[in-house]
This record gives sequence, C-alpha cells and structure tokens, in this order.
Amino acid sequence: MGLRDEILEQPTIFESLLKDQTDRIAEIASIINKPTGIFIAARGTSDNAARYANYVWGANNQIPVALAAPSLFSIYNTPPSLFGQLVVGISQSGESPDLLAVFTEAKRQGSQTLAITNQSGSPLAKKADHVIDIQAGTERSIAATKSYTTQLGVIAMLSAAWSGRSDHREEISRIPEQMADALRTESQLQIFSTRYRDLDQCVMLGRGFNYSTAFEWSLKMKELSYVVALPYSSADFQHGPIALVSEGFSVFAIATRGGVFPDMEKLLRKLKGEHKIRLFLISDSDELLSIADCPIRIPDNIPEWLSPIISIIPAQLFCYHLTLAKGMDPDAPRGLTKVTLTI
Amino acid sequence: MGLRDEILEQPTIFESLLKDQTDRIAEIASIINKPTGIFIAARGTSDNAARYANYVWGANNQIPVALAAPSLFSIYNTPPSLFGQLVVGISQSGESPDLLAVFTEAKRQGSQTLAITNQSGSPLAKKADHVIDIQAGTERSIAATKSYTTQLGVIAMLSAAWSGRSDHREEISRIPEQMADALRTESQLQIFSTRYRDLDQCVMLGRGFNYSTAFEWSLKMKELSYVVALPYSSADFQHGPIALVSEGFSVFAIATRGGVFPDMEKLLRKLKGEHKIRLFLISDSDELLSIADCPIRIPDNIPEWLSPIISIIPAQLFCYHLTLAKGMDPDAPRGLTKVTLTI
Repeated sequence: MGLRDEILEQPTIFESLLKDQTDRIAEIASIINKPTGIFIAARGTSDNAARYANYVWGANNQIPVALAAPSLFSIYNTPPSLFGQLVVGISQSGESPDLLAVFTEAKRQGSQTLAITNQSGSPLAKKADHVIDIQAGTERSIAATKSYTTQLGVIAMLSAAWSGRSDHREEISRIPEQMADALRTESQLQIFSTRYRDLDQCVMLGRGFNYSTAFEWSLKMKELSYVVALPYSSADFQHGPIALVSEGFSVFAIATRGGVFPDMEKLLRKLKGEHKIRLFLISDSDELLSIADCPIRIPDNIPEWLSPIISIIPAQLFCYHLTLAKGMDPDAPRGLTKVTLTI
Repeated sequence: MGLRDEILEQPTIFESLLKDQTDRIAEIASIINKPTGIFIAARGTSDNAARYANYVWGANNQIPVALAAPSLFSIYNTPPSLFGQLVVGISQSGESPDLLAVFTEAKRQGSQTLAITNQSGSPLAKKADHVIDIQAGTERSIAATKSYTTQLGVIAMLSAAWSGRSDHREEISRIPEQMADALRTESQLQIFSTRYRDLDQCVMLGRGFNYSTAFEWSLKMKELSYVVALPYSSADFQHGPIALVSEGFSVFAIATRGGVFPDMEKLLRKLKGEHKIRLFLISDSDELLSIADCPIRIPDNIPEWLSPIISIIPAQLFCYHLTLAKGMDPDAPRGLTKVTLTI
C-alpha cells in the first residue's frame, strides 16, 4: 500500500464512511444541537479541513467559526474565553500536544469538545466529549490524502445533520461516484506532470469553499514535490502577491461553477491575457478550461459546497506523478514522519 | 516621499499616534466595553495586523478572535451569525467592497462595528459605529509600512485600554524610541541585502505574536522583491512544509525572547545543524544570533507582545534594499495599485 493506492481507494473509503457514520453523526449533531460558535484546533492537512469547515458551517449553518491559535493555550497559558463554543479538534493521529492543550482548556472552561480523528483510541479522542471516527483506515503514507477527504466528508455530514436539509444529504450520497469519475483523469495528469518536471515555485488559487483546496494542494506540492507553492484566494492574491507574476509563471487554480466562479474567472482571464501565465486548471467549465495550458475536467453536477472533496483528487494525483517525474519517491518525503508532535 | 522615507518616519508617526489617539481609544474602549468576541475583516497588510490582534486580544484580554471569510458576505450571501460580536474592519483606504459587505451585514444583525483606518472619511469609516484613525498620514508607497505599524499600535492601545494595565500603557509609550533604535540596523541590512541578490524563494518563520511579522515580511518580499516567500509558524512548518528545506535553502526568522522563544530556538538550531539552511535572523538574543549567517540585533527590553511593532522595521528595510540590489524600483512594484478593490 503506497500513496497512489491510498489516493485510489478514496471512493471505497468514502462509501464506507457514509454507510457506517451517517447515523452516528446525526446522533452527535442532535446531542450538540447547533452551537452558537465553533472553535477549531488543527495542524497541517487537518488545518486545511478546518478551512473548509469555516465556509461550510458558515454558509450552510450560519455558525461563526474561528481557527485556534494553539500557542495561546500550549505556550502562553493565556487562552481566550471559549464560553458557549463547541471546540473541535481535527487530527488524523489525535496525538499532537498543542491540540490536547486546547481540549484541556476547553474542558476547564466547561465547553463541549468534539474530536474528528482517524484514531478513536487516541489521546485527543479520550479527552473529547464526542468523537467522530473518519474511518480512513490505516494511512501509511506521510502525505495525507484519504484522511483529508474523509475529514471533509464528516464536516459536510455534520452540516447536513444540523441543517436537516435532505437535498444536502442526497448530494453527499453521490460523492463516491464523483470521486471515482475524478480518478479517471489520472492518465491526463501523468502526461501534464512531465511538463512540470523543472517546476520549483508556483501559486495556487482557489476561493470560497475551494480556498481549502488551494491550501491542501499547495501542501502536497511542498511535502511531496518540494515545490515552493503559495496558496491564495483570488481576492487576497490581488492585495500584493500578484506582483510576483511574470510571463510564464506557473499558476495552478481550482474554479468550479458556483458563487465564486465569476470572480475566479475574471482573475484567471486577466492573468492569462495580461500576465501571460502558464495555467493549470481544475474546473467543470469547458469554456474556462479552453484558456488553460493544462486543463483538467472534473465531472458535472457537483454542488459547489461539496466540490472540494472531488477537486482535490486530481490535485493529489498530479503531485504524486510530478514527484515521480522529478525522480523522487512519493512514499518517502524527506524530513517528515507520519505523526508530528508540536507544542 | 518614497518608500524609504515612509519607513524612516515611523517613530515620529507613532509618537503622534500616541499623543493624539490615546484618550480617544480609551474612550472608545469604554463605550464598547470588553466584547465577548471579535470578528475581523481585512485584506493584505491589514490582514496581517488582524493576525496580530488575534494574539494580543486573545492573550491580554481573553477575547476570542475570528478572521472573517469575506466571500460568505460579499458573494455567497450566507453570512454567519455575528450575535454579540464586535465586528472590526481594518483597512488603510477603507474602500474595499468586501469589507463594506461585512459591515453592512453586521449592522443588519445589530452588531457593533469599529473601523481602524487611515481614511476617516472613507466608506468603511462612514458605515462604522466607531472609527479609530491610525494617523499614518498620506501613504504614497504601494507597499504599506507605516500604516501597518500604526494599525498594530492601535490594536495594542485598545488591548491596554480594555485590560486597564498601566504597565502595558507604559510599555507602549517606549515604542517610538525602540523603533528609532531598530532603524539603526539599516547599514547592516544594506550589506546583507547584496548577498541575497539572486534570491527567488524562501521561508519566513515566526510564532505567537510574531506570526504576524512572518506574514507581513513575506508579503513585502513578494510585493517589492518578487521573491516567492512562504510564511509559517514554527509549529505549522513542521507539519509538512519542512520537506522543502535542503542545504543552502534560505530561511528568514524572527525570534525574540519570550514565550515562544524556546520553540523557535529549537527549530532554528535543528534547521541550521541538520538541514544546513542559510539563516537570516532578527532577534534580541546574542546567543541565538551567533548561529545566523545574517544576524540582525534588535534592541533589548522590548516586551514580547509589542515586539512585532519593532521587529518588522528591519524586515521592511531589508526588502527595500533587496529590491534595489536586484535592480528594481521599490517605489513602483509591478501590477499593483495603492487601493485594491475586491469583492
């Protein structure tokens, strides 16, 4: 079992998650009720899942979400008030001491805690009032893939449980099939990856729900392919970083149809037309894909709010093949271990 | 008046800010009282000031701070509940439509709004219940410098007003002098800048209060010097991005004595010893500076919580001189305008 296997098994894993956890998540959602605010502690890939939660729980459930600054808890010992907040820890391993410090303080203040983790026997899970098992199975690869999409899945399922929207539940049920469709882009991605063999820096653009995708894609690029990849929303990018871009600069973007699509489209057309960038684009819009140097078409009919669960799949496969194209081993990134313990 | 003049006038500007705004800020702080939560909307440099506020208002005032996802307001029209929150907009120009959308919604929901801006007649200021003028004077340069340190100053002054701590007020009063001391590093920075003439990518590390400094330094590097600069906390960096680092990789760091110093020190010694990085370090610790390739000593006796207002100054000067060393014009970064309007 290597990284590629773990990428490929995501539809099956997600199918099991839906089958085994839907009732459990509905039960937890009803016990917690809809919280007045959510405070999330997470690191690395799980922090990108937290970025997704910020949009999903904000947009679908009107819940204000804050991302924790763990050092206020673990180092400064001057934590903010968590009164009335649901404190959520997202972690594959459930072991990092900084997240445990946030949970310890949450319990001291009497706030409810929820762990979203792949290790239901982990220290984080043991400290939590409620635990949701992401059921990703053993993730051997250092670069997280299936634990990320299952974390997003749990976040989406919680949202649907809180809102009680049956259309959302139905939309979630179609994810495994759409994931399988997205995996069919692999041969195309392999071809494109060879064109980026010398890539050493780039920008990743995504906005709204897919802000998380830009961050997670850029993290995979760094971990696996050692590419200095900068993630931005289309808005933040224009407040300064756009100065980086000159002719031929590599931009990777996710632009799926929906609310932020016109804004993404406008920026990408400008970057292509005026700045002559080299554009790698994951999209479901044939019209916009026509301006990309490397277009990757993802399936139709994916609702925007769930699109990050699908759009990250070609991104994962691309990073896998790029790493091979660069002559490196995607199953052994340098300097990393599977579980990272930070304070 | 060019960028360098605006960097150099910061002690004088800050002195005036203290003189003219201390009473006004105390008055606003007492009207607002200590809010139960703060929700901040900002972009670019102002967003880095928001990162500072997250730590200062969290650590000194125990207020939970959330950074807004403006697209939930301006594009999706599905804003989160802002009940009981003080909504703060930070913006030099006070013009960006996305921030205005957040304020419009805040008023609709009956939440109090506070604008921290350099333009007290701007649309954002006009919409706000309370306005604090950062008094940076006209900022002609596209790269924000004095508007950043005055924004941090206002955030610190609000914190001291809410806590009523006279030691904090006294500490703030010493900032102009410490800023002037920090400006004396310029000749050293100019020498170092020539060594980085070919720099095209790097990592910036800072944690806790100086997480904001890492972000703001990396933004100046991108805007002015077109360097692909990745900002990280010492903790986040170890959850994946550390794989980027190979021998000779350029790391820029801020490590001032205080709570997060041991964690920063441990990581920097490891990166230097095991990974053989090239280290540019801003610090007040002679011992740690001794391992840096390019050490920049900032004055003693700066309290950690205020150190970002001082430590950014050598970073600004370095970016200015690096841009010149690269043969480019720091007063005319490509593709940028002073006021950026995003939705």
